[in-house]
Amino acid sequence: MKKFMGRNFLLDTETAKELYHDCAEDLPIIDYHCHLSPKEIWEDRAYQNLTELWLEGDHYKWRIMRACGIPEYFITGDAPPFEKFEKYAEALEKAIGNPLYHFSHLELQRYFGYTGVLNRQRAGTVYSYCQDHIQDEGCTVRGLIRSSNVEVICTTDDPADDLHYHELIAGDPSIEFKVYPAWRPDQLLNMDKETFPAYVKKLSEAAGTEIRDLGSLLEAVEKRLDFFGEHGCRVSDHGLYEIVYEEGTREDCDRALKARLSGEKISEKDLKKAQTYLMKEFGKAYHDRNWVMQLHYGVQRNINTRAFETLGPDTGYDAMNGRKCAEALAKFLDALEKEDKLPKTIVYSLDPADNAVIETILGSFQAPGDIQKMQHGSAWWFNDHKTGMEAQLTSFANTGVLGNFIGMLTDSRSFLSYARHEYFRRVLCGLIGRMVENGEYPDDPDALRSIVEAVSYGNAKEYFGF
Amino acid sequence: MKKFMGRNFLLDTETAKELYHDCAEDLPIIDYHCHLSPKEIWEDRAYQNLTELWLEGDHYKWRIMRACGIPEYFITGDAPPFEKFEKYAEALEKAIGNPLYHFSHLELQRYFGYTGVLNRQRAGTVYSYCQDHIQDEGCTVRGLIRSSNVEVICTTDDPADDLHYHELIAGDPSIEFKVYPAWRPDQLLNMDKETFPAYVKKLSEAAGTEIRDLGSLLEAVEKRLDFFGEHGCRVSDHGLYEIVYEEGTREDCDRALKARLSGEKISEKDLKKAQTYLMKEFGKAYHDRNWVMQLHYGVQRNINTRAFETLGPDTGYDAMNGRKCAEALAKFLDALEKEDKLPKTIVYSLDPADNAVIETILGSFQAPGDIQKMQHGSAWWFNDHKTGMEAQLTSFANTGVLGNFIGMLTDSRSFLSYARHEYFRRVLCGLIGRMVENGEYPDDPDALRSIVEAVSYGNAKEYFGF
Amino acid sequence: MKKFMGRNFLLDTETAKELYHDCAEDLPIIDYHCHLSPKEIWEDRAYQNLTELWLEGDHYKWRIMRACGIPEYFITGDAPPFEKFEKYAEALEKAIGNPLYHFSHLELQRYFGYTGVLNRQRAGTVYSYCQDHIQDEGCTVRGLIRSSNVEVICTTDDPADDLHYHELIAGDPSIEFKVYPAWRPDQLLNMDKETFPAYVKKLSEAAGTEIRDLGSLLEAVEKRLDFFGEHGCRVSDHGLYEIVYEEGTREDCDRALKARLSGEKISEKDLKKAQTYLMKEFGKAYHDRNWVMQLHYGVQRNINTRAFETLGPDTGYDAMNGRKCAEALAKFLDALEKEDKLPKTIVYSLDPADNAVIETILGSFQAPGDIQKMQHGSAWWFNDHKTGMEAQLTSFANTGVLGNFIGMLTDSRSFLSYARHEYFRRVLCGLIGRMVENGEYPDDPDALRSIVEAVSYGNAKEYFGF
Repeated sequence: MKKFMGRNFLLDTETAKELYHDCAEDLPIIDYHCHLSPKEIWEDRAYQNLTELWLEGDHYKWRIMRACGIPEYFITGDAPPFEKFEKYAEALEKAIGNPLYHFSHLELQRYFGYTGVLNRQRAGTVYSYCQDHIQDEGCTVRGLIRSSNVEVICTTDDPADDLHYHELIAGDPSIEFKVYPAWRPDQLLNMDKETFPAYVKKLSEAAGTEIRDLGSLLEAVEKRLDFFGEHGCRVSDHGLYEIVYEEGTREDCDRALKARLSGEKISEKDLKKAQTYLMKEFGKAYHDRNWVMQLHYGVQRNINTRAFETLGPDTGYDAMNGRKCAEALAKFLDALEKEDKLPKTIVYSLDPADNAVIETILGSFQAPGDIQKMQHGSAWWFNDHKTGMEAQLTSFANTGVLGNFIGMLTDSRSFLSYARHEYFRRVLCGLIGRMVENGEYPDDPDALRSIVEAVSYGNAKEYFGF
Repeated sequence: MKKFMGRNFLLDTETAKELYHDCAEDLPIIDYHCHLSPKEIWEDRAYQNLTELWLEGDHYKWRIMRACGIPEYFITGDAPPFEKFEKYAEALEKAIGNPLYHFSHLELQRYFGYTGVLNRQRAGTVYSYCQDHIQDEGCTVRGLIRSSNVEVICTTDDPADDLHYHELIAGDPSIEFKVYPAWRPDQLLNMDKETFPAYVKKLSEAAGTEIRDLGSLLEAVEKRLDFFGEHGCRVSDHGLYEIVYEEGTREDCDRALKARLSGEKISEKDLKKAQTYLMKEFGKAYHDRNWVMQLHYGVQRNINTRAFETLGPDTGYDAMNGRKCAEALAKFLDALEKEDKLPKTIVYSLDPADNAVIETILGSFQAPGDIQKMQHGSAWWFNDHKTGMEAQLTSFANTGVLGNFIGMLTDSRSFLSYARHEYFRRVLCGLIGRMVENGEYPDDPDALRSIVEAVSYGNAKEYFGF
Repeated sequence: MKKFMGRNFLLDTETAKELYHDCAEDLPIIDYHCHLSPKEIWEDRAYQNLTELWLEGDHYKWRIMRACGIPEYFITGDAPPFEKFEKYAEALEKAIGNPLYHFSHLELQRYFGYTGVLNRQRAGTVYSYCQDHIQDEGCTVRGLIRSSNVEVICTTDDPADDLHYHELIAGDPSIEFKVYPAWRPDQLLNMDKETFPAYVKKLSEAAGTEIRDLGSLLEAVEKRLDFFGEHGCRVSDHGLYEIVYEEGTREDCDRALKARLSGEKISEKDLKKAQTYLMKEFGKAYHDRNWVMQLHYGVQRNINTRAFETLGPDTGYDAMNGRKCAEALAKFLDALEKEDKLPKTIVYSLDPADNAVIETILGSFQAPGDIQKMQHGSAWWFNDHKTGMEAQLTSFANTGVLGNFIGMLTDSRSFLSYARHEYFRRVLCGLIGRMVENGEYPDDPDALRSIVEAVSYGNAKEYFGF
């Protein structure tokens, strides 16, 4: 029996233990994709209690509470902080095998020094223990980032954003970690949304270019890309329902855009043509700037209408949509590759059944000079757990070169989530350790450390050019 | 080397052994979904030999015999009982890794006390051994149910069924286990079938309401639901090719229904509109009665036409259809949830590649007051084996709260199949034991026993309200 | 810690070790599906160095080199042999978990006696070592085949092929292994290709029958089938984008064929009707000859247009297409079964998410007299690795009779690839050993050896009738 989440948690061989403790454990973190708030970083927000830290915005936690039938009053409602925490502890106790069980306990260990168990019975003890810690040592955003050994953070930002807080952070020499924006133009791609014309107006203002047609839109985009680039942006992100590929001309796109700007509806096919055209333009722009393109697909959002109307988006009512995008993905990448304009690309599907499909498509677009130019992204969202990570790593290894993987990201809204990098590194070392001790890879400490160091830290640094 | 299917079969840690033997093993069984015959229960059918018990209707077994090229004469034909049994033993010997290997041996152990191996060579010995046992001790339906420690059985019944045997069973105080009907209105939903008008006539008679249109159909359904409810029914079941969601009005449904009643064909789209409308009506009715709705999808039935024409349905010629129903499922659940009429729901897909997709959709419809209102059903049919169960449990745990799972059912036509509950409990304890001994959950006997007890028995009891 | 790829590589139990070393290891190989060149067999091509052997045509290896950003000059270009080899060694070192890591080392061990590690640093040493071995012992095609203990090889041949080298090989009594052609009529099925009319002309000439319509095409096919049969052919192979099933008449097919022969385009639907019709005709012809039909589907080929234009097909730019073919597959098999004309069939999908779906469909078409008439083919192409093999074997075992499986093939263009049969047998023995030592199957050496012998060798011999 191993100690519960002890020093060698998830490390089941001597090789794994050595690799983790001697190599992976102390490496800095490059968090190239998250949803942290630059405002909170700048203001160095101070937290008062665990409920603020854990339950203010984490819809993963809300979901397991709802699965236990706990009323919204204790989840997103007005219940007092400790009561919310107590309810969470009650749900957690039954969530054996859920990654939240591990993440929560890792966070208690790393950020508060609490190494015991959190369950309903001990909820009060744990809460007070952490409260004392917060009072004694403080608990602020920058403190958490520093103690997590974070080197780079890429937030997620709209093209119309003024990057005000990024500027403030960059101008403050006391902030030794880097915070860069990431370019997420989903609102531009979602041309069918009712809010599209209003959004375009906002973007026009941000760019100082009135967007009336495709030409002016691309001009405005260009300006904003430059603006983001000046603020250190090296990476874009696209949240897509599915990968779309419908050939269309520049005129098709222009016509669709104008129609939508004047409030007209357009057909599904015209929408897809316009989106495909825009996505290609974005891809080329990223390529020319040597930015990385991230494609996230496979989510159906806000599927519970009543909950959406009460609580809004990003509150725990999203799911996989099961769409198979293999052919569209191949065609989209090929369209860019044909023009020698394919940027470095990371692809994530929400459906774990797509792992092998994605690997084989990306493997057809690797290119001279770039190490693993095309990357199958880390196990994401609902797959962000031990079995999900192992499945993604194994799939990556089976058909590609695992030593080239850029590794983990948090994709998180919480400053405590850096513990997930530790989790990932433990899973990685566990997997590699088993291979070695099973005689499937030589017991060559230099080669092994080199792989673990690269996947945990070095590859991301080089890939993004930080 | 562990003993072949010994006391600690599938229990590979000390924690697993303790959990199974001290907690799970002796819990009663709630079999909330099966295809057992109430008539046979009432008549307390007595079995004469193993062939009757095993090979009369179990198409799982028939399939592995066919895979060995054994002629139908020995499978569904007129071969003498022992010859059939011998052929099955011959097939079983080569079926390493098949769940039938385990189920068959578990049944020999539990119901006949035979702890050796069944193979071609020993077929005669085993047959005689069990024959003696049957002669000495008898082997009747009620005896098997009692010795399996079954508390509740839900059979599967058509809305037009008179529930005659359920009445007889309920009226007999000597039958201490409960037998309830389950409501399975597939014939009403399969409006495109040629037999539909005839079926509706039968239902009209059962309800005492002539069904001429949607209004009278819903009236008849209401009466039958009440009738089933009076007989203890708490659960419905829908066997669906795929989850369908096509918005339509009450008038659309009414028109389609009338067309079909007068023998006309309707379009695929009109059919789907009508089915969607009816499914919503059913869902609301279940909600109002606090019944559980079961949705089974993903089967293509009778795909071998020659075999179907010779042997009829349910003879081993069904398969997965690979349909991806993520979006329709989300829309259907949402349509009910929007009206605050979503009943407790259990969803099963035949395709194991859908596990994660289902979890994430259901996780978006959990509700205050109900513990795990939405349940991803136990590994079903072709997935009813160790790896299938482990995959379903792991998937449930990864994105939900495993401690809330309502657990196993038999889905069986055989009274010996209760051994599958033992199998499931062993797999469950095995999985949990590995987590604990691997340091992934605390070695907290109370918490662990509470989870195992709940998943093996308690949750189902509470969920269905038995 | 196990020795790196030592004597007991992948054998993690005593049972596995015994089964492998006492039973599987020395069995001959029946390679019923590969892409080896009969010309090279006849000419007994001699290899000069490892680069020729490994890097001349193996796009698996090219892909991992490209993933490391290595320029094409070192992959398919004009770099000197050793430099290419060195670059491959560099990529391999980082490819932990990739099957190439294992295949490459197995080949070094078995064919050159080199038991150390290949990495960038040792590339020169390994190259020279093998060079010496080649100089001392020679390295020729027939030598490799003999030392691999190969009994039968089925190459892959076009119906228009003259089978010249097959004739020469068959006529040479000094060649004690058998080399048979396999019938692969993809060019006939790909009626939409521009090259179709030219191909039909070539086939006309080979058959001595001018193909003008469906009647004459089937006549020509019949002649070529006979011709192949005379040369020992027992197996066909179809490489399909997806399984197509679109009912059409003989007239539909005739019309589509004539249109295409005169250079006209036909609609997607007419194409599918014609293909379905032809596939049924092929199926019947195989059945009547007692040939085996192989169906490979799920590949999108040449998805990288620029690379295709530079390097041509089969150069490492193919991927999974994610198409779900469950219903079409069932309908196609049923169409043949209805006429009692379903041949023995092996089905392979490139997408591992299809495993369970395929098993359940095939399980519905097993037939009296043939042992496992319908076979789910061995883990193929991108799935040809430990986890892919284990997944396929487990899936086969879960719903079928693993002891009936016809086992491994190489699907390879390299004469060293016979090492993959060793790899497969180790995986098989590993899996079975774990079952036995875990108490899931009796420790019955005779039964176990019988299963291992059958899956490694005997079943294929019997199934194909070699």
